[in-house]
Amino acid sequence: MLRYLTAGESHGICLTAILEGMPAGLPLAASFIDEELRRRQLGYGRGARMTSVETDRVQILAGLRGGKTIGSPLTLQVPNRDTSIDKLPVVTRPRPGHADLSGALKYNHEDVRNILERASARETAARVAVGAVAKRFLQEFGVTVFSHVVRMGGVQANVEKLTHAQIRKKAEVSPLRCADAKAEAKMIALIDKAKAAGDTLGGAIEIVATDLPVGLGSHVQWDRKLDARVSAGLMAIQAIKAVEIGAGTKVSVLFGSQLHDQIFHSKQKGFYRKTCRAGGIEGGMTVGGPIVVRIHMKPLSTLRKPMMSVDLKTKKPFAATVERSDVSAVPAAGVVGEAVVAFHLADAFLEKFGGDSLTETRRNFRGFLSQVENF
Amino acid sequence: MLRYLTAGESHGICLTAILEGMPAGLPLAASFIDEELRRRQLGYGRGARMTSVETDRVQILAGLRGGKTIGSPLTLQVPNRDTSIDKLPVVTRPRPGHADLSGALKYNHEDVRNILERASARETAARVAVGAVAKRFLQEFGVTVFSHVVRMGGVQANVEKLTHAQIRKKAEVSPLRCADAKAEAKMIALIDKAKAAGDTLGGAIEIVATDLPVGLGSHVQWDRKLDARVSAGLMAIQAIKAVEIGAGTKVSVLFGSQLHDQIFHSKQKGFYRKTCRAGGIEGGMTVGGPIVVRIHMKPLSTLRKPMMSVDLKTKKPFAATVERSDVSAVPAAGVVGEAVVAFHLADAFLEKFGGDSLTETRRNFRGFLSQVENF
Amino acid sequence: MLRYLTAGESHGICLTAILEGMPAGLPLAASFIDEELRRRQLGYGRGARMTSVETDRVQILAGLRGGKTIGSPLTLQVPNRDTSIDKLPVVTRPRPGHADLSGALKYNHEDVRNILERASARETAARVAVGAVAKRFLQEFGVTVFSHVVRMGGVQANVEKLTHAQIRKKAEVSPLRCADAKAEAKMIALIDKAKAAGDTLGGAIEIVATDLPVGLGSHVQWDRKLDARVSAGLMAIQAIKAVEIGAGTKVSVLFGSQLHDQIFHSKQKGFYRKTCRAGGIEGGMTVGGPIVVRIHMKPLSTLRKPMMSVDLKTKKPFAATVERSDVSAVPAAGVVGEAVVAFHLADAFLEKFGGDSLTETRRNFRGFLSQVENF
Amino acid sequence: MLRYLTAGESHGICLTAILEGMPAGLPLAASFIDEELRRRQLGYGRGARMTSVETDRVQILAGLRGGKTIGSPLTLQVPNRDTSIDKLPVVTRPRPGHADLSGALKYNHEDVRNILERASARETAARVAVGAVAKRFLQEFGVTVFSHVVRMGGVQANVEKLTHAQIRKKAEVSPLRCADAKAEAKMIALIDKAKAAGDTLGGAIEIVATDLPVGLGSHVQWDRKLDARVSAGLMAIQAIKAVEIGAGTKVSVLFGSQLHDQIFHSKQKGFYRKTCRAGGIEGGMTVGGPIVVRIHMKPLSTLRKPMMSVDLKTKKPFAATVERSDVSAVPAAGVVGEAVVAFHLADAFLEKFGGDSLTETRRNFRGFLSQVENF
Repeated sequence: MLRYLTAGESHGICLTAILEGMPAGLPLAASFIDEELRRRQLGYGRGARMTSVETDRVQILAGLRGGKTIGSPLTLQVPNRDTSIDKLPVVTRPRPGHADLSGALKYNHEDVRNILERASARETAARVAVGAVAKRFLQEFGVTVFSHVVRMGGVQANVEKLTHAQIRKKAEVSPLRCADAKAEAKMIALIDKAKAAGDTLGGAIEIVATDLPVGLGSHVQWDRKLDARVSAGLMAIQAIKAVEIGAGTKVSVLFGSQLHDQIFHSKQKGFYRKTCRAGGIEGGMTVGGPIVVRIHMKPLSTLRKPMMSVDLKTKKPFAATVERSDVSAVPAAGVVGEAVVAFHLADAFLEKFGGDSLTETRRNFRGFLSQVENF
Repeated sequence: MLRYLTAGESHGICLTAILEGMPAGLPLAASFIDEELRRRQLGYGRGARMTSVETDRVQILAGLRGGKTIGSPLTLQVPNRDTSIDKLPVVTRPRPGHADLSGALKYNHEDVRNILERASARETAARVAVGAVAKRFLQEFGVTVFSHVVRMGGVQANVEKLTHAQIRKKAEVSPLRCADAKAEAKMIALIDKAKAAGDTLGGAIEIVATDLPVGLGSHVQWDRKLDARVSAGLMAIQAIKAVEIGAGTKVSVLFGSQLHDQIFHSKQKGFYRKTCRAGGIEGGMTVGGPIVVRIHMKPLSTLRKPMMSVDLKTKKPFAATVERSDVSAVPAAGVVGEAVVAFHLADAFLEKFGGDSLTETRRNFRGFLSQVENF
Repeated sequence: MLRYLTAGESHGICLTAILEGMPAGLPLAASFIDEELRRRQLGYGRGARMTSVETDRVQILAGLRGGKTIGSPLTLQVPNRDTSIDKLPVVTRPRPGHADLSGALKYNHEDVRNILERASARETAARVAVGAVAKRFLQEFGVTVFSHVVRMGGVQANVEKLTHAQIRKKAEVSPLRCADAKAEAKMIALIDKAKAAGDTLGGAIEIVATDLPVGLGSHVQWDRKLDARVSAGLMAIQAIKAVEIGAGTKVSVLFGSQLHDQIFHSKQKGFYRKTCRAGGIEGGMTVGGPIVVRIHMKPLSTLRKPMMSVDLKTKKPFAATVERSDVSAVPAAGVVGEAVVAFHLADAFLEKFGGDSLTETRRNFRGFLSQVENF
Repeated sequence: MLRYLTAGESHGICLTAILEGMPAGLPLAASFIDEELRRRQLGYGRGARMTSVETDRVQILAGLRGGKTIGSPLTLQVPNRDTSIDKLPVVTRPRPGHADLSGALKYNHEDVRNILERASARETAARVAVGAVAKRFLQEFGVTVFSHVVRMGGVQANVEKLTHAQIRKKAEVSPLRCADAKAEAKMIALIDKAKAAGDTLGGAIEIVATDLPVGLGSHVQWDRKLDARVSAGLMAIQAIKAVEIGAGTKVSVLFGSQLHDQIFHSKQKGFYRKTCRAGGIEGGMTVGGPIVVRIHMKPLSTLRKPMMSVDLKTKKPFAATVERSDVSAVPAAGVVGEAVVAFHLADAFLEKFGGDSLTETRRNFRGFLSQVENF
């Protein structure tokens, strides 16, 4: 069982995650996590704040020795550059689209800052750190997790003719993490247009994990289904309003004969599919091979165009204020999505294969692969 | 904390759920649950099996006395009519789109029946029973949960001009649980066409819960967000491949200024919204009022049109066999979706308001409403 | 991960447990569980009710096919013979030593029966059924779990010169589950004396699990320690007021040099201990070999000797009524304790070794044994 | 729901805990936690290391603003003074009584330091910090948690004639946290004797929580019983080998008529007991008033007197080395025990009363008290 908790506010001292359940013996460098944190800070459409030279760096405060995990919980801490939380002014004006109003009423706070500081997407830095460890673990078993932007505004990327390896490579060097250069150009134009109009933009991201073994997750109970677990994690990312597995919303349009992934077998590959419309998950379990999920992020809720809200104290209407000037954080959300998917895959992986050391987990993993091969 | 486990196979003796955490003193009749079980069995597009006269009936074997919950766990049991599981033939031919293949390899079963019997959507009868209890509980607080079909194949229902009360009323008397009679006629034609072609159809369902208090769920930790919890439950329903909250996938198309629900206030209503594009959840918490989610169900995986698969024993290809002849179970999935949403709302409700008796939970609830009113 | 919920009232229709997480392929007969249920009903000191000819029988309603587990949750149901719960009279007189008063106030029940029916030790039949499955699982790995009575009233059993195998054998044929015949005779005399006086007796039971591998449980987090988990389960048995691991309360008397189990090594045995004063658990993990725990059960709370209490309705004092006439249920509590220990061991076992089929779990287990052997 | 994870090694950079679920609005000062950390470091029998001038100090890195909790998770961090973990020598010699051997074999570590650094009782500093927050919370409801040493070696404290308030006061100023000065003198003599002999001593501690409301915990499911939850927490403290509730192990000696706490009622007090032999918990629930538990700590496992063990590498026997020179840490274990009890009480408290702000929890609490008063 893999589990984690995060803590930390946007302008507090730091973000912290405790991650427990990683086997001992996994080589893990802070630089590996830092690279994921850096990827999270990238992306066309961010304001000056995020793209500044200073990037997040993790401190691994527990669970690691001599560059390897030792089996005890990992403390991952990301210091904030701006730690002025106690000096920042009281906020009484909740912003539409944020946790502000509901949070203030629920937790009985007159100062909305007590909500927005924690509800901020800044928290995802901690989840990216956790996911980086999961990615590192999955690497040992040949699993790669990546993301690419597939839609922004009305612009749709077309990657049908690309392999996963190609998509990944293209996305990784693209300012928008988009593998379709033509679409990307249009998306960038749209971002610029939104920026000029003081507006914001959302987008859709596809997250892919490759080379998974068959049988992660389970059909036996609702909360053990892999798609359910991954969906919970993804929907818990700030601003995500839809999660699709494989063909996703298109399944309500197609006929059955157009949709289901037929099953094939060869000596070399064993059982396999030629299509991935189920997104690599059937009956709550991986079918083996890649899984493909998509998330839809809403436009940032803070925009220069005024939106009506009500002051908590005076109950008077006002035009909601701008706290930040990013137009879009869609590429970043993709990196967070990767982290989330990686975590849940590692969790399902350890649930199935057990093991307290990398040696043991690997031995169990290989034993199962042989079993499947000789089925 | 509300929790449940279900057990039972499709052709086993019965389905069973244990539900724990309901406060004492809730009036609960088996007939109330039976009505939900009956609704689950309805819907144009089912084969003869489901629409037969005999309907599911629950047995409440624990937790109830004198027609009221007593605080101890509820055992909800739904006997199967066909209990021939031990006599049914061995299945070695996994069907595409089902848990069959992954499950057989994971659990090391030569007989796929050991997987398909549990992976079957028959299991949702237990979840509907659990959800019925949650619905009954929510009723006490004025919360209603209902569903309606919004898409089948390429046909989209248009309910923009209807209130939630109107949608609910229309859907409840519609053979497809669709509130748009014109669209429904086209959907039915499509179902008939698919039936003739030996094909199957999926669809999309909207689930609405009305009159919720502000502040269910929380922004403070990823797994406490209400949208994350509801999404997990919904994605865990058999054949669901996408979950949308509010505007859902459209958030990746719209500009921020078009999307966010502005905030208003009046003496009578307190804080309120005129739109519901966030689906009633911001920052992982209810904003107060309705929540709206949508799920997309894939076409049934068993169709008369042959699909290619491979025999587990011989490793020879074959054209996948038909086990059932339904064209669609979309309306039924809506009823399951209601159950799942109701469960997670009741869970979040009890998490916030606590209470071991209905009296206590109600007192705590009212206290909070006053607090919000006087905020 | 192994988990279970139980439901059911003492005079309700049945007790039910859902147990999830057992690998597929485990041979399991209802008769195996029935034998444990039978053992739970034995023991000198019970009244006529328990020792009547009719014994509990389990119905396995899900999760089993062709005599083997299939990986899906097991429904274990034990029908009650007396199902008159709805006709039984209102109880307004809480008994000292029971859940009666606290439960009635907490759950706001005017009728204490709504509490006592669930709080009754009758519920342990469900836990014994769950534990029987765990025992069956552990058998596959050579682990045996048994119990014997070590104290009743002031009488202490002396088994210092017996091996675990001898203790087990003697206890199993003893009317009191006591391996020291001399002590047992005195205990029986004490029971008879208590019976004559209308009084009740508690006792202490030792529970032993043999032949465990090293490394079940973990030191890394408080709630993963095996001793913590086992203690929670044991203290949750009705009437248990103390749990000891190994030397238990004696550790607060002895010097360190008298207590700790020194470590030895031989080619044949690997690392081993000659003593078991730590009870086989150090740092929250099994050391390999047996574990030994002890539980202390209070005398039954319902006795013919009157105890003062207060009527809930009239608030008038009264002398508490007798609901049952057993003098002691200590041997039965031992059987429940075995079940609880077996469950937590199986849980820790599956946490470490993973596996969805017995084949897979066994392969992983053997791999680890080799690893330890070649350490 | 209250939950926490801790992380950190004995000679690592720091210990960290994330605690989630505390309502907003609770006044909390680092100095309050520091005082508990200081109490944990006291006690006659510690070596020079622990009683050095420098004491632990907590850093609250998240969840607090303006001196009050804001509802988001708290990060509690205690820096270590000695952070040389990466430079410390390899350990291949497991010490009897420690996690050393089992942990090394389980996690496949050639260097036992990778186990002992986390298994160390140093980790309890994090749990004391967590418990301090829980204590602070309980204070708001008039609940006090304290501990006192009741046995060391063969010396038993006698506090029968003292009230809880008196015991607390005396223990707090005693070098051994013992309320019986005569017994304490003998205990100190015993410690000195053990020290001279190079030996170590364990002891027993009583932990008391006063003024609890009725109805915390529940009888309805095994893992919701308060005694089970508290026992798990206590047994998870390093070196604890027995947990007793109320009369504890004595329940296996006494007759029922001698044991059970009779029930009384008066207008002023409502229902009450004159005795506390059940330790304030019946049927897994508080009866109202104090709860009393006892834990037994084994002598420290590292002693100057040699104990036999085996080198992991050479497999040669050796006389186990001394890593520390404390004779006893019993008073400190009492402070840890207080923390653990406070956590589980606060958890059960929030489970029953809910609430996201102190205002709300208090309102719910008072509502229940009125309900009980007017029962």
